[in-house]
Amino acid sequence: MNDKTFALKGICMYSKTQQIIEVMDGYVISEDGICQGVYETIPKEFENIAVYDYTGKLIIPGLIDLHLHASQYPFRATGMDLELLEWLDTYTFPEESQYADIEYAKKAYPIFVKDLKNSPTTRACIFATIHNEATLLLMNMLEETGMKTMVGKVNMDRNCPDYLKEESSEKSIEDTIEFVRYAKENYKNTVPILTPRFIPTCSDDLMVSLGTLKEECHLALQSHMAENISEIEWVKKLCPDADSYGDAYERRGSFNQSGNTIMAHCVYLTQEEENLLKTRNVFIAHCPDSNMNLASGIAPIRRYLKNGLNVGLGSDLAAGSFINLFHAMSSAIQSSKLYWRLVNETDVPLTLEEAFYMGTKGGGAFFGNVGSFEKGFQMDAVILSDDNIESSKKLTPKERLERIIYLGNNENVISKYVDGTRI
Amino acid sequence: MNDKTFALKGICMYSKTQQIIEVMDGYVISEDGICQGVYETIPKEFENIAVYDYTGKLIIPGLIDLHLHASQYPFRATGMDLELLEWLDTYTFPEESQYADIEYAKKAYPIFVKDLKNSPTTRACIFATIHNEATLLLMNMLEETGMKTMVGKVNMDRNCPDYLKEESSEKSIEDTIEFVRYAKENYKNTVPILTPRFIPTCSDDLMVSLGTLKEECHLALQSHMAENISEIEWVKKLCPDADSYGDAYERRGSFNQSGNTIMAHCVYLTQEEENLLKTRNVFIAHCPDSNMNLASGIAPIRRYLKNGLNVGLGSDLAAGSFINLFHAMSSAIQSSKLYWRLVNETDVPLTLEEAFYMGTKGGGAFFGNVGSFEKGFQMDAVILSDDNIESSKKLTPKERLERIIYLGNNENVISKYVDGTRI
Repeated sequence: MNDKTFALKGICMYSKTQQIIEVMDGYVISEDGICQGVYETIPKEFENIAVYDYTGKLIIPGLIDLHLHASQYPFRATGMDLELLEWLDTYTFPEESQYADIEYAKKAYPIFVKDLKNSPTTRACIFATIHNEATLLLMNMLEETGMKTMVGKVNMDRNCPDYLKEESSEKSIEDTIEFVRYAKENYKNTVPILTPRFIPTCSDDLMVSLGTLKEECHLALQSHMAENISEIEWVKKLCPDADSYGDAYERRGSFNQSGNTIMAHCVYLTQEEENLLKTRNVFIAHCPDSNMNLASGIAPIRRYLKNGLNVGLGSDLAAGSFINLFHAMSSAIQSSKLYWRLVNETDVPLTLEEAFYMGTKGGGAFFGNVGSFEKGFQMDAVILSDDNIESSKKLTPKERLERIIYLGNNENVISKYVDGTRI
Repeated sequence: MNDKTFALKGICMYSKTQQIIEVMDGYVISEDGICQGVYETIPKEFENIAVYDYTGKLIIPGLIDLHLHASQYPFRATGMDLELLEWLDTYTFPEESQYADIEYAKKAYPIFVKDLKNSPTTRACIFATIHNEATLLLMNMLEETGMKTMVGKVNMDRNCPDYLKEESSEKSIEDTIEFVRYAKENYKNTVPILTPRFIPTCSDDLMVSLGTLKEECHLALQSHMAENISEIEWVKKLCPDADSYGDAYERRGSFNQSGNTIMAHCVYLTQEEENLLKTRNVFIAHCPDSNMNLASGIAPIRRYLKNGLNVGLGSDLAAGSFINLFHAMSSAIQSSKLYWRLVNETDVPLTLEEAFYMGTKGGGAFFGNVGSFEKGFQMDAVILSDDNIESSKKLTPKERLERIIYLGNNENVISKYVDGTRI
């Protein structure tokens, strides 16, 4: 027995499938940080382990945020009047350029890290900026929280302001190798991930070199894809060799290893691109709040789920405003309803169960066996109180969860375990 | 000088027009509960009045919620899986029927009233249920808060479950008269408003009698209109005499007095209906959160504003989940972006200024000179702190307001004045 072997007592809720949230008032068991399942009473073999009592509270797997920009957190919920490309030039690039100054990073990142630690998220895939020093500072701080994250130093060597452009593709790769090496040597919870911003800001040389690095060093990769109509047109012009945005990534080697690539957004995919992402086992980070704020549109998530693609959720700070990933769940449901009503009546709205699945087990699969309380999953758990959402009505556990998904925020999180450790 | 004569010191922000939010770090002056404008320094004539110091905080007019159902508050943020008509049958009518029992009302309404009091809303138009006793209990509680509200005992005498149907149109009118008489005699802040649920649940006799009552007693009236496609089809069948949903209300006398009628939703209006609402000076309560949750669609608010219709915002609890009306502002902006992207590219997205206008001065016009700090307006003010939304960035007052509109909730409200009285 060790510190990572224990039981949490409360109302345990988790996804087995996309359609079903399992509910049991009982105990979820962790043995050495690995979940042993949920039981009404503690099984005999575990009768001597520590029990942490959250009777009456909801216990769910930690939420998984597959896409966010830590460096943009200072301007979250402002500048909501532009579409993607103008928004980048006007708000995003000027803010990101400030992280060249490590003193600014020391002021900005602690606020993000504190808020993420207090949120229901246990694991996240994070964009920093092009700056190694500031990015490693962020990783230092994340490492100490105990959360499991993948963090990327951003690559961008073209089509962006000089003040934020890397001097060459060679220098960009050099910095990336140094960043990866340092991070691998120094962090356990915080893993480096290759992070070309998106094709418009990354030269072919850079993309190809990153693809090679991905293969050689077995690295994960995250980027953006098919978020906005003007962006897609632009990529078409920039990549005359490719049949589509997805094909451009494919040809540059971004997908050439299975199961470790995230493409954020994917609002507009052709059937061929969908097939490609499926074959290459790419994860889609669905960011519905961002897609509304930047007027990008609505991703056809019903279709992606039906076709068996990997879909998780992203807060997409700061085009999305909420660090609390519950908001991405309710936002996913709401926008799927408008998609059904306004775009395609055969794509029925997402259910609560499906949104919860995407925010836990769906995105969790990017990290391995993560995002459920089934046996063999890593022990990430969040304990939720809904005492601040009063009602005269007697509510079922699922109704209580639904209320937190719509109305909850960091204040509803009373305790959090990551990989078997309370953080 | 009296208690209602004072100055509030802070960063004053208010709408003059739909396009401009005025910002001044200074003093907003109240004289006997009437706003005397905003000044950088206190004018000589007011130099001896009390000054309440909120230096550095944002001071805005109180928000105006033109549409909500107090009786549905217990099930807010649950049951989000159905469209309007099924949602009414499954969740709403069973909950509303409980208010026949005054003991249930005594448990339920205090939670709503407390939360509304703590919210940024200073004035609201509220649906209760068909039950006089419970509705007057709600009014009692609202009266004590000092907020200004209009509250309706609901009318419904057909097409609803027996357990919630009034026994006849005569009895419904009788109860309404009794309700209005009692409320007028006993309340100052809390005004009765005629509240036929909507045409499907109100017989022609009932609607016509309510129209007559509206005229004779100079009463305001609130109802629902053109929220959902099936509902509109149903009204077509129920009212063969009318050319449209709007025309059905017109023919039954609901609009026959100008400026004191609210129609919630108006997601789908014909050009003729739009003209009618404009001629009759009807207020539209735009409820974007509700329209997403019930998959109703998106109301073309850009078009309504362009055509000079009166538009305010409604939380529409509990089809909308948030009692905090800031959420209706951000939701209005988000859904207008999707309308522009997916439905009609000539209807450009709503701006922050327009959303703020609708939630203050736009809806406030229903209550008279309400919702601005211009001279002559009634002195409703809300003082906001954004200390809990940290940032390393130096923000302008408008950016601070934008953040609260996207991320804020009742916790950001630190003080509230209604009609010149701190509540």
